[in-house]
Amino acid sequence: MARTEISRIGRQAALDRLFEGSGYANAQPVPVERRGAACTAHKLLLEGCDFDLVYTPLKHLGYKAVLCVLGELYAALREPDSLSVALGLSKRFCFEDVAALWEGMLAACREHGVKRLGLTLNPSVNGLCISLAACGAQKRTVLEKVPAARNRDLLCLSGHLGAAYMGLHVLEREKVSFTGTGEQPDLSPYKAVLASYLSPEIKPGLIGRFIEADILPSRGCFLTRGLGEAVLRLVRDTGFGAKVYLEKIPISSQTFAMAEEIDMDVVTAAMNGGDDYKFLFTVPIEKHDAFRKEFHDFEVIGHLAQPDVGAVLVTPEGAELPIHAL
Amino acid sequence: MARTEISRIGRQAALDRLFEGSGYANAQPVPVERRGAACTAHKLLLEGCDFDLVYTPLKHLGYKAVLCVLGELYAALREPDSLSVALGLSKRFCFEDVAALWEGMLAACREHGVKRLGLTLNPSVNGLCISLAACGAQKRTVLEKVPAARNRDLLCLSGHLGAAYMGLHVLEREKVSFTGTGEQPDLSPYKAVLASYLSPEIKPGLIGRFIEADILPSRGCFLTRGLGEAVLRLVRDTGFGAKVYLEKIPISSQTFAMAEEIDMDVVTAAMNGGDDYKFLFTVPIEKHDAFRKEFHDFEVIGHLAQPDVGAVLVTPEGAELPIHAL
Repeated sequence: MARTEISRIGRQAALDRLFEGSGYANAQPVPVERRGAACTAHKLLLEGCDFDLVYTPLKHLGYKAVLCVLGELYAALREPDSLSVALGLSKRFCFEDVAALWEGMLAACREHGVKRLGLTLNPSVNGLCISLAACGAQKRTVLEKVPAARNRDLLCLSGHLGAAYMGLHVLEREKVSFTGTGEQPDLSPYKAVLASYLSPEIKPGLIGRFIEADILPSRGCFLTRGLGEAVLRLVRDTGFGAKVYLEKIPISSQTFAMAEEIDMDVVTAAMNGGDDYKFLFTVPIEKHDAFRKEFHDFEVIGHLAQPDVGAVLVTPEGAELPIHAL
Repeated sequence: MARTEISRIGRQAALDRLFEGSGYANAQPVPVERRGAACTAHKLLLEGCDFDLVYTPLKHLGYKAVLCVLGELYAALREPDSLSVALGLSKRFCFEDVAALWEGMLAACREHGVKRLGLTLNPSVNGLCISLAACGAQKRTVLEKVPAARNRDLLCLSGHLGAAYMGLHVLEREKVSFTGTGEQPDLSPYKAVLASYLSPEIKPGLIGRFIEADILPSRGCFLTRGLGEAVLRLVRDTGFGAKVYLEKIPISSQTFAMAEEIDMDVVTAAMNGGDDYKFLFTVPIEKHDAFRKEFHDFEVIGHLAQPDVGAVLVTPEGAELPIHAL
């Protein structure tokens, strides 16, 4: 495959090519088009800490990086509006690498209705550095209806947990054996967990569904560092306690199978695994029936509680295990 | 001096300490408070490429990093509103390092009326990585009055150029000799140029002055990569040409002296040096007299021209030298 040095074509020409035919113009600074109350979500993803290019295709990484920052906006009930991307690129990366990453980013932006887009290319001494700043907005009339968080608000989770962590585990394991033998491993048995890690999805239109159903959550968290961290954040932000019922935590059959294969506790994967790209919303308890009826893709896994409860995981036997930060 | 590992106190406790007494609460995502038309400026600063910690005090770096992103907002006629900072920190950096960096950032935020602030701390394999996303807003009624860029618009520059580049040159030179001899160099003769590099300033209230004087520029650039790059950007954005008159480019006496000492062309420093942290605005020519009267801190250094002129530097002899990208 051709490898074109960015310094050879020039930074501006590289940017022009990346935007050509994308339907976007490169905006600096990036304007916010939606009216209403805006906010900025911001993520910094660094090679070697947040991703490993040995097993992460650049296109997938680009797609996932954009979801990672848009998820924070959805959790705050904002519709994505604009995105600014700044890349730090060491000499290892050629134009074709950046184009693959950008292709994934563009796909996510289109799917999620991002209206304005900005990109800058910066030199880096070491590896790839991805910084994303996304602005989202919501009508003030909608935000005014957001209820205050209250004791007994339901903890509602948008999907199953732990699969992405299992996928990461497979990739790390096969990386070691691949590095050792040089043989390309057969990963087909792990397709589902690998997809959870490499190609997470967020359904656009989530906020619209809340508004339409007249069920506005009091809080929202986007899960990228495990359920435990999100529950602790909720407890911290609301001043309430929280109970999560262990047997209510949704875990896929593939995650169970994989956990058995590698002899890992599946609850640990769900609580501390990370990369789930799911949402945890707190919903007023009086909306319970309406929520159940309208939001089949969510599971109710617990509820806010009195502050002195703290953050606890309730076992089927009724024991309350404190949730700790990692 | 005490060196506290961040991992020892925990990331959340470190964040709590950094915000304690700051007058800010750590917001994630960061809300935009001002109403009107918002936009996001975004900068990624990487150790080894954008700054050298051998001679840059962390507090100065923090202050300068914030100005670097707020400058882009001012150039777009936006008042700073919110700032999100994401730091990538390798194990080399202790809590006290981050606190010094943050102190500089807080000072800049306070001076420039930043209302909401967010900070995240992320692990990094290599060195310090600073990502900044700033939101600014402006009343729509003001932005509607911004004139279209036209031929003969004046190029107005907010101060002298090249000093920061000379300061950087001194620091790089003394770094080499310091590394060789271990002796702390005497930098007092270079105070002015060093300050230009290490402690640039932006006067808050610039946009208010434009509005009050009823002189809205058609375009604005914030100069961080030299005058040449900014003029090329203007030409690119407006579709016009531009003439810059060499003898009109303001250069301080210290910059002249330093250029002589190191036998460097002072015009090269001004055109391509970078780190100037000055503004270049295009102002309608019919506002010439009013602008001169109200904006003594600006110099008129040229004007927009017919597209076929391109971007040129006009010598005192009348020769037109094309301005190239570096």
